Amino acid sequence: MSDYDSIRAVRWIDDALQLLDQRVLPHRETCLSLERCEDVAQAISDMVVRGAPAIGITAAYGAVLAARASYAAQPSDWRAAFAGDMRQLAQARPTAVNLAWAVERMQRLAESLEGDPVPALLAEARIIHEEDIAANRTMGELGAARIDAGSGVLTHCNAGALATGGYGTALGVIRSAWADGKLDAVYADETRPWLQGARLTAWELMQDGIPVTLLVDAAAAWLMQQGKVQWVIVGSDRIAANGDVANKIGTYATAVAARYHNVKFMVVAPSSTVDMNTASGADIPIEARAGVEVLQAGGQPVAAAGAQAWNPVFDITPAELVDVIVTERGVVERPDRDKMRSLMTSLPS
Amino acid sequence: MSDYDSIRAVRWIDDALQLLDQRVLPHRETCLSLERCEDVAQAISDMVVRGAPAIGITAAYGAVLAARASYAAQPSDWRAAFAGDMRQLAQARPTAVNLAWAVERMQRLAESLEGDPVPALLAEARIIHEEDIAANRTMGELGAARIDAGSGVLTHCNAGALATGGYGTALGVIRSAWADGKLDAVYADETRPWLQGARLTAWELMQDGIPVTLLVDAAAAWLMQQGKVQWVIVGSDRIAANGDVANKIGTYATAVAARYHNVKFMVVAPSSTVDMNTASGADIPIEARAGVEVLQAGGQPVAAAGAQAWNPVFDITPAELVDVIVTERGVVERPDRDKMRSLMTSLPS
Repeated sequence: MSDYDSIRAVRWIDDALQLLDQRVLPHRETCLSLERCEDVAQAISDMVVRGAPAIGITAAYGAVLAARASYAAQPSDWRAAFAGDMRQLAQARPTAVNLAWAVERMQRLAESLEGDPVPALLAEARIIHEEDIAANRTMGELGAARIDAGSGVLTHCNAGALATGGYGTALGVIRSAWADGKLDAVYADETRPWLQGARLTAWELMQDGIPVTLLVDAAAAWLMQQGKVQWVIVGSDRIAANGDVANKIGTYATAVAARYHNVKFMVVAPSSTVDMNTASGADIPIEARAGVEVLQAGGQPVAAAGAQAWNPVFDITPAELVDVIVTERGVVERPDRDKMRSLMTSLPS
Repeated sequence: MSDYDSIRAVRWIDDALQLLDQRVLPHRETCLSLERCEDVAQAISDMVVRGAPAIGITAAYGAVLAARASYAAQPSDWRAAFAGDMRQLAQARPTAVNLAWAVERMQRLAESLEGDPVPALLAEARIIHEEDIAANRTMGELGAARIDAGSGVLTHCNAGALATGGYGTALGVIRSAWADGKLDAVYADETRPWLQGARLTAWELMQDGIPVTLLVDAAAAWLMQQGKVQWVIVGSDRIAANGDVANKIGTYATAVAARYHNVKFMVVAPSSTVDMNTASGADIPIEARAGVEVLQAGGQPVAAAGAQAWNPVFDITPAELVDVIVTERGVVERPDRDKMRSLMTSLPS
């Protein structure tokens, strides 16, 4: 097991939620300190924090802040205000199911509590956070075991420590495989329009001394044609019951190209990302953000004034293009409905 | 025939070569006036002008400037200096064969001239320029004829008026199809790292009142999955004797995705782009530019300091992924060596 585990996107310090502002990385390392649940919802909407597991953990701490405010205002009747805050929080972004998953888990616990709910909710949020890091460690080992020595790997967006409680999903596998000496090369798509690959993945891997080569997203297929990579390794924002995978726009293009080139495609995500209530990818809500995100680059306007843009934030990679899904419960090869049900109804390992 | 033909990237005015500086479009419309061949070579290297046919035309005018200077300096022995300038000019960029094609054509004429070579060379450069515009008009008609009414089309990079003498290759087909009322939607990849789609294609089409929707390159496959486009239409920097197509990085990814989705793939290029001396795509030199072009966006640094980048400027789309190549000599379906030879040895129509 590697020791590459120092980066934290989400922290609970001095009774407040501290978020590393991922919008300004890598140029500035700035933390926002949040003490109100509505600010947490806004920070998720505004992408101060992003990445499905990190959003879930953030929401869990947001629930603590909501309960604290509600209980302080009306100790005998705090649940209505809390429930309102939880509804707002759950709607901060639509695609990552970890958000709803964390909100529901915190609400379920809250319903069972008597007296001041804050200590128990804070303990639960910390458990969710620690469980996620542990899951990433487990997935790192499981995923790395699939990779042959001497491999090149390509990742898209950022599914690293910054997108999770720590260590990362896709980057957790890459960290573990690197620690095992299996990787000849790590490539990262820059991932327009938010450039999470260039800004976040490169920053993370360089912090850990893992050499990474960036490329424009459109070069990924050509990289595969050149024989440079044997695996594409990505995270996910939601995995449907049939194994369809929602992830950052461009993941689907990479999966199509991987299949064409006989490159293996690995999805790494904790079981909190698997949504057995969503039958297939067609049922996953795909967030569309403002076109202006495409019309600018590096914070500068680039397109002709008045141009329009189509800006879907995620896409769906059908299960048939996925070679393996790695979760902390185990690895599913060539996922389908039966295998996903079997995974999710098994006892966690 | 449409009238969309007002944009000129290259002009000969007042005995000088005027280049519209494409590096600063669409925010500034600035022309550089060049009077020395070495400045023309530098302008091509620096991408003041880009697009294979436009580079060829620019080089033709560059030859006029070279001959003028050489003849003024040594009227009785201008050919050696001229030949040196032509060697430098031909090396300004490696992939677009139109550059070598134009240089050779001008050199061949120069060898036959007695006395002041400038008038005849200038006339030849003007002919090359006018031939290119006429070829684009012809290709526009030929390509548009292949497109069914009600289609959506996607283009990559800029193969428009700015990349040619005028009217454009891929955008010439789109202009003609739009004028024919056949297009429901025109989509353009933004085309990182230089953003020719966002900066140039959107600007051109908006000048002509043709609505265009930009998308990040990584969204192209998802656009196809959504059934939004029936054709991908691109230009080329060099077409090998077997029909393999060099074009802007990302073209190959788009071709792979098009085939997966049963979307048709059209390459539009004048016969000056066909290089019968290059057997296949594997023999086409692919320019690699500095990684810093990827590490910045919109002129701002985006990646973590010290990150590396892989920046191939072009890729090769194999002939087997191309449905039609449209030239001014005619249309080749499912190109191969025999069909390309037949096209290039036929009399021009």
